[in-house]
Amino acid sequence: MRAYDLIQKKRDGAALSAGEIAWLVDGFVLGSVPDYQMAAFLMAVYFRGMTFEETAALTDAMVRSGETLDLGSLAGCAVDKHSSGGVGDNTSLVLVPLVASAGVPVPKLSGRGLGHTGGTLDKLEAIPGFNTALSEAAFVEQVERIGCAIAGQSAAMVPADAQLYALRDVTATVDSVPLIASSIMSKKLAAGASAILLDVKCGRGAFMKTASDARVLAEAMVAIGREAGRRTAAVISAMDYPLGRAVGNALEVAEAIATLRGEGPGDLEALCLVLGGWMLVLGGRAVSPEEGSEELLRRLRSGDALRKFEALVSAQGGDARVVGDPGRLPSAPLRLPVPAPAAGVVAGIDAEAVGLAAMQLGAGRTRKGEVVDPAVGVVIERPAGAAVKVGESLATIHARSEEAGLAAAREVAAAFEIAESAPAEAPVIRGVIRG
Amino acid sequence: MRAYDLIQKKRDGAALSAGEIAWLVDGFVLGSVPDYQMAAFLMAVYFRGMTFEETAALTDAMVRSGETLDLGSLAGCAVDKHSSGGVGDNTSLVLVPLVASAGVPVPKLSGRGLGHTGGTLDKLEAIPGFNTALSEAAFVEQVERIGCAIAGQSAAMVPADAQLYALRDVTATVDSVPLIASSIMSKKLAAGASAILLDVKCGRGAFMKTASDARVLAEAMVAIGREAGRRTAAVISAMDYPLGRAVGNALEVAEAIATLRGEGPGDLEALCLVLGGWMLVLGGRAVSPEEGSEELLRRLRSGDALRKFEALVSAQGGDARVVGDPGRLPSAPLRLPVPAPAAGVVAGIDAEAVGLAAMQLGAGRTRKGEVVDPAVGVVIERPAGAAVKVGESLATIHARSEEAGLAAAREVAAAFEIAESAPAEAPVIRGVIRG
Repeated sequence: MRAYDLIQKKRDGAALSAGEIAWLVDGFVLGSVPDYQMAAFLMAVYFRGMTFEETAALTDAMVRSGETLDLGSLAGCAVDKHSSGGVGDNTSLVLVPLVASAGVPVPKLSGRGLGHTGGTLDKLEAIPGFNTALSEAAFVEQVERIGCAIAGQSAAMVPADAQLYALRDVTATVDSVPLIASSIMSKKLAAGASAILLDVKCGRGAFMKTASDARVLAEAMVAIGREAGRRTAAVISAMDYPLGRAVGNALEVAEAIATLRGEGPGDLEALCLVLGGWMLVLGGRAVSPEEGSEELLRRLRSGDALRKFEALVSAQGGDARVVGDPGRLPSAPLRLPVPAPAAGVVAGIDAEAVGLAAMQLGAGRTRKGEVVDPAVGVVIERPAGAAVKVGESLATIHARSEEAGLAAAREVAAAFEIAESAPAEAPVIRGVIRG
Repeated sequence: MRAYDLIQKKRDGAALSAGEIAWLVDGFVLGSVPDYQMAAFLMAVYFRGMTFEETAALTDAMVRSGETLDLGSLAGCAVDKHSSGGVGDNTSLVLVPLVASAGVPVPKLSGRGLGHTGGTLDKLEAIPGFNTALSEAAFVEQVERIGCAIAGQSAAMVPADAQLYALRDVTATVDSVPLIASSIMSKKLAAGASAILLDVKCGRGAFMKTASDARVLAEAMVAIGREAGRRTAAVISAMDYPLGRAVGNALEVAEAIATLRGEGPGDLEALCLVLGGWMLVLGGRAVSPEEGSEELLRRLRSGDALRKFEALVSAQGGDARVVGDPGRLPSAPLRLPVPAPAAGVVAGIDAEAVGLAAMQLGAGRTRKGEVVDPAVGVVIERPAGAAVKVGESLATIHARSEEAGLAAAREVAAAFEIAESAPAEAPVIRGVIRG
């Protein structure tokens, strides 16, 4: 086999066999296929796409490039969860203990965030003492014992993904559905859960701007899961406004705790109940997502979900007192209001602009390895649809310095669209795809 | 400027500025733009193409990557000539002295061939003593003195082309019109002639299979010449059958000598008169190609063209006695006939198959740096349209060994299509594009 022929085949629009794709990925990881040939191949994939079979074969080859987690010892059907990410998206913090409280094991491996705010690991590390670096044995043991764990993925898992992503990142080949789908799913498959729920975001604050683009990505990922023999479903959800009210690491932890207490923002609770309902279906604990959602609502009200979160924090060395007293979380020295420049109704909030403001406050990172500030961020006080008077605060900026806070306040003010009447309410859930 | 942004811009179908293209090419030559980014860019160009302005800017950047030849000291308008190559294409051997004999300087730099037969340099080196490695000063002095010279291009000219071609060759990005056009034209522009005639072949034996594909390439090259301020024209000519009768280095030299004597194959003479007629127009020695062709026909009949070839051979150290006695050229020890398997009329000869047979005899090279055998090759005895009897020889194989000769004879026999009636004669000239 020659890399040249495989590049040419893809360039000319033909589908590669699973053997050809495996040869290419293996050669790239070993160094026998040079990066310039892989770069040309990736650009050809950008233009020609891949069939579901090719995408599944690519994912499989990536998974086989490294170690995988063996969850065979777990009782029950473990369900993993992935979100394509959005501004203020702390659903994992809520869902992992919530679903585990209903008896479905949730072993969740996560990455560091790049962008607006930290990833799930960064958010959890805002809790004093919380340890996300668990050994494989400790991770599995914790899931067996308390039903859930959240830890960082080992570098020994899916090395092909890290190598391919680094090359895509410098060759303008990131925005390709089969490459995005295989990158996400290779990590999910390597993490070992027998079922996977995907939350694919669409809208202004998401990677996929339209519901139809999100559907294409969701279908590719569900097809990969099906080919790999995992029960997989994808929920397409809107990300036009920031999810919930908080954007920032400790601020989102506090919001997740409030949600687990049954006192969270309505949009966040509603989305968690839908996603969690599907996780219960995939885990065999509900026959329909509606039945699952009802079960989870009971777990929120009974306090089971909050107690599971407390157990999770304790198990991983965190200060569990934050659950009863979120004031123990890191907090920023300055709080600045964002006064409304006009009276009216909040017709929209540009999620991406709010995310960028939070990043510039220090909540997110622009480069791998940067330290994030757990305390800073933005809390929306007037969500979409709310009436506001002139000068009333639209949001609160949590800042380290006045200079940074004032800059963020200007950006957040500009992110608000204030109109005469409320916008028509669009549904948060835009579709579901089942494997 | 970042290479990433330029890759993305091309990927998304936008046109790059001349400054952006120059930055990319300069960076690639210097090593600051890594080959994997250039590979992704080239594949994006494969899919998105380039405007004439972009192609001209790419060519210009390539020319500026190395040395260029200064022909400012030449009296008269020097005309260069390029052929996109074909089987048995020895027009340069005829045209350079022919056009020079009519008073238009022809300074021709050539490359080595890769494929069926050698390039022009390999063919000339079949003449004992002929030296194609001239210094710049010697090259220019010879053109001043006798009106023409044929030499190898220095490695210091257009290094960007060599680097880009090497990368295209391993990333399946050779077959792209703007990349082909800029590669050819960068070498022509660096070679310094103020006018350029392009012979773009189309058909079974050519790189471009159809006249419309050849036209697209020709238009791109003529546009580059125009942008660079060179008088440029392109003739599109058919290459369905081998040109002339000879395929092989010394065999083609002998055929060129016969043609310069006015005794060559009709198709070769006719094509040379058309191409040469245009060269006289570009060089300002004729007002129409027809007038130019008539002038050149007179130069063939008067013996001026043959004497100019003799002067060229002598000036470059070759044994000029080959002109009067082609038997002094290297000859192969074995000559084998290719008997016709059936009676009828030659309806077609697959040029590519004949070319491959000649290459396997040793006339061409499959890898850079391979030595070619000057003596071996194929001579067509029965061209398209000729009547044949069973067993009559269709062609003569000039071989080094009986084994190689018999194998070539089988391949050449298979390349002949013998039918009941002659095919309709198709015109050799398929179009002309003027700058």
